[in-house]
Amino acid sequence: MLNIIRPEEIEKRSFEIIEEETKKIKGSIPFSNEKWQIVRRIIHTTADFDVLDNIVFHPDAIEMGKKAIKNGCIIVTDTNMAKAGISKARLKRFNVEVECFVSDEDVAKEARIRNCTRSMVAIEKAAKVGKDIIFGIGNAPTAIFHLIDLMGKGEVKPALILGMVVGFVGAAKSKEELISRSIAPYIVLKGRKGGSPIVAATINALLDLC
Amino acid sequence: MLNIIRPEEIEKRSFEIIEEETKKIKGSIPFSNEKWQIVRRIIHTTADFDVLDNIVFHPDAIEMGKKAIKNGCIIVTDTNMAKAGISKARLKRFNVEVECFVSDEDVAKEARIRNCTRSMVAIEKAAKVGKDIIFGIGNAPTAIFHLIDLMGKGEVKPALILGMVVGFVGAAKSKEELISRSIAPYIVLKGRKGGSPIVAATINALLDLC
Repeated sequence: MLNIIRPEEIEKRSFEIIEEETKKIKGSIPFSNEKWQIVRRIIHTTADFDVLDNIVFHPDAIEMGKKAIKNGCIIVTDTNMAKAGISKARLKRFNVEVECFVSDEDVAKEARIRNCTRSMVAIEKAAKVGKDIIFGIGNAPTAIFHLIDLMGKGEVKPALILGMVVGFVGAAKSKEELISRSIAPYIVLKGRKGGSPIVAATINALLDLC
Repeated sequence: MLNIIRPEEIEKRSFEIIEEETKKIKGSIPFSNEKWQIVRRIIHTTADFDVLDNIVFHPDAIEMGKKAIKNGCIIVTDTNMAKAGISKARLKRFNVEVECFVSDEDVAKEARIRNCTRSMVAIEKAAKVGKDIIFGIGNAPTAIFHLIDLMGKGEVKPALILGMVVGFVGAAKSKEELISRSIAPYIVLKGRKGGSPIVAATINALLDLC
């Protein structure tokens, strides 16, 4: 019922279609080669071309992300979904672990006691790991706001932040803040859109770039 | 930095915004109450209102889905991401398990031997479980095509199929086929869009409806 059946062939053809349609929309591919590897994978994951207009790269983002991965950083996501979407085969090539602390019992308990979000406590837990960190935030604006606070206090110095929160309340604002403060390299999806699969796609593309 | 901080409040306000904007786009909410519970959760997950035009419900879909959940069915997803996105707290209320066979070693081995996709073999493995099944397919067109084949042969009789594959090659066609054959209740997202978070959101909304 389907002529092309091998996933590699489907992926190849998909990227061709994405490239053709992007050229139709924009006249040409409006990104450098490395950025395009990331953008086309996000489109592949969402079938949504809005990212062409919404994505913003800090000038050092890709370099810092690659360097961190090659140095065996940890990747910290704010959902187990994003963690599940990051390719284990790709991670194996590097000494990189993915952590998501948001469902940890100690995190949940502390959030209840302090009457704050689990995402905020999870960010603090990540900050204490003592390794280079790439943060992949696709869900909780409070995670981004809290990360900005902690960076301001010098308590964490991320190698790269993926600001890709999805939502209607606080999401767009949290990401604007990440761009305007610019105290760490970021890749941001402006506006309401974002989410765990976009975080995972970006990490997977970064791993491919290494 | 963010006034509203409690996740429940953010969710409530988000649903209000989604309702307001849907009314602006469509004049009124173009779904029955139960369908709307599902649609608004998908919008909440994606910040994308395209679902208003793309979603198609088989007339028995919600009833069959609810019945299966109340009878302790299994939910089979085609990605670990979708599995990770289904609320464990919600599942606990019912005797329902979520399975994803696509990364199983035996599935990978058999797919290599038969030169087909792991998603196809995973569907066959699910069909042998011998329980009511809700299939949540957000990734692999081959999973949907194969499911249609197996249903045609009488080898599996799903309680409900979520046809929500995302992609550029085969995705739209696989979902059209699910609608035109109509041999099992379905909830389908027509066109290219879909994905694991949408599958998870739909399941979570169904669990809330029970």
